[in-house]
Amino acid sequence: MNSRPTNAFKYCIRVSWGDCDPAKIVYTGRLTNFSLDAINAWWGDKFDGDGWYQMELDKNVGTPFVRFEMDFHQPVTPRETLYCFVWPLRLGNTSISFRVEGEQGGNLCFSARTVSVFTIADQFEKRAAPEEMRRVIEMYLPSD
Amino acid sequence: MNSRPTNAFKYCIRVSWGDCDPAKIVYTGRLTNFSLDAINAWWGDKFDGDGWYQMELDKNVGTPFVRFEMDFHQPVTPRETLYCFVWPLRLGNTSISFRVEGEQGGNLCFSARTVSVFTIADQFEKRAAPEEMRRVIEMYLPSD
Amino acid sequence: MNSRPTNAFKYCIRVSWGDCDPAKIVYTGRLTNFSLDAINAWWGDKFDGDGWYQMELDKNVGTPFVRFEMDFHQPVTPRETLYCFVWPLRLGNTSISFRVEGEQGGNLCFSARTVSVFTIADQFEKRAAPEEMRRVIEMYLPSD
Amino acid sequence: MNSRPTNAFKYCIRVSWGDCDPAKIVYTGRLTNFSLDAINAWWGDKFDGDGWYQMELDKNVGTPFVRFEMDFHQPVTPRETLYCFVWPLRLGNTSISFRVEGEQGGNLCFSARTVSVFTIADQFEKRAAPEEMRRVIEMYLPSD
Repeated sequence: MNSRPTNAFKYCIRVSWGDCDPAKIVYTGRLTNFSLDAINAWWGDKFDGDGWYQMELDKNVGTPFVRFEMDFHQPVTPRETLYCFVWPLRLGNTSISFRVEGEQGGNLCFSARTVSVFTIADQFEKRAAPEEMRRVIEMYLPSD
Repeated sequence: MNSRPTNAFKYCIRVSWGDCDPAKIVYTGRLTNFSLDAINAWWGDKFDGDGWYQMELDKNVGTPFVRFEMDFHQPVTPRETLYCFVWPLRLGNTSISFRVEGEQGGNLCFSARTVSVFTIADQFEKRAAPEEMRRVIEMYLPSD
Repeated sequence: MNSRPTNAFKYCIRVSWGDCDPAKIVYTGRLTNFSLDAINAWWGDKFDGDGWYQMELDKNVGTPFVRFEMDFHQPVTPRETLYCFVWPLRLGNTSISFRVEGEQGGNLCFSARTVSVFTIADQFEKRAAPEEMRRVIEMYLPSD
Repeated sequence: MNSRPTNAFKYCIRVSWGDCDPAKIVYTGRLTNFSLDAINAWWGDKFDGDGWYQMELDKNVGTPFVRFEMDFHQPVTPRETLYCFVWPLRLGNTSISFRVEGEQGGNLCFSARTVSVFTIADQFEKRAAPEEMRRVIEMYLPSD
């Protein structure tokens, strides 16, 4: 039921030597950051290049995380491009949930699920998702 | 039932300007890294200074993560020391689970729960937890 | 005399919210890392995708840095793509020097100069640059 | 002439597995960050805990870097504590220069030299060093 929609956003990450630890695979802490980067890129892809930076500073809309979950299936290395597939799982009145799946060579390496709340950025107060954002996000929600 | 044991390991993190994002709070991706740092420090604290580096390279024992969960309760800033409390939640035959709670000024800022598996490090193969490690870890498991 | 050659390698970096500090510009420590990423990508571009990871692990050739210099001219933000131009400045018998210039919107934001030495990776011993690497590198050295 | 003053600030860094690359030593990009962390800690040490975060947000004083130089002498590993010694080298009217020396086991591993300018933080405009800061900084400048 959580299967990846065909229109999931595909984000490419070039993994580097500096992302790896002495086990010769990408360090866990880099993988959590890659997942966040991929979600930020999803926003940019859907809103004319406006990721979290523009959302916060130009639109005064924040989406701080309240929950982050990640499962690690296979190691990631710099030998291939890392593809992160991102899509919104659920849009609540004041919250949004994302799924991220990381693949290398056609194998699922990790999957993440996040929950964020919408805030008035400069007050760090919860708010409903802005209507103009809601209209766009709804286009990418999984149909049941 | 998941309440923090009195002998939980306390790890201090000096939060810095570079850990913060334009919202003036520590970036989510830094908090996930802080949790990992705290678990690494737990190993060092219980095994004569031997964290993951010595475990992998000297003892050929790896503990790669298979699961990472984090809840974010309050923002973290550089205005106070961040205290991370770490303890093992559960020790299976081939796996170990940790809890990390991050506090500033007496307030819970985040909590994490992880699952790792024990591996023969240079083969990246699952193995049972070494007996001499098991004996130490068991001393810190919550009593029910 | 250090002017950028027309065939300098151009590397694109998508700057993100998490790269920025509370001054709303990319943190200095991220800029130093971007410069390193760009040099790693230069190797990959010139050697069939083989960056530092493949050099070290497959070819047993290391190029650890002995010197890193950076000048910061203008802030970098997530509002535009960051273009890093990279080229080798000088190839010695056992060393190589690179230049990196970071641009946003046509403005020079930073420039870096590095010196690395060639090593036998698994011995961390200095060595002469391998002849097959030297032949390729020389094609990109500035002509005087 | 650049010899370390006896009252240089000593900052301890616990190096971790995640700071290391597959060469089993700390990644260059982490070392540049450690140097910056050490300078931030110097400010905190001299100004009642107020590092860059408090300087920027509470005092409206910024010190963005315009120059960063680093020499790498020996690898850093998680086997020992990393001690960073920090002191101001020179205080100009609108600029300040720092030296950082990183040591493990009594051996010099790296040294950095930086130049920053004083700014009105919320305008990103150059300014003279505030008199109350100047008085403190001067106490730690090397005597010639």
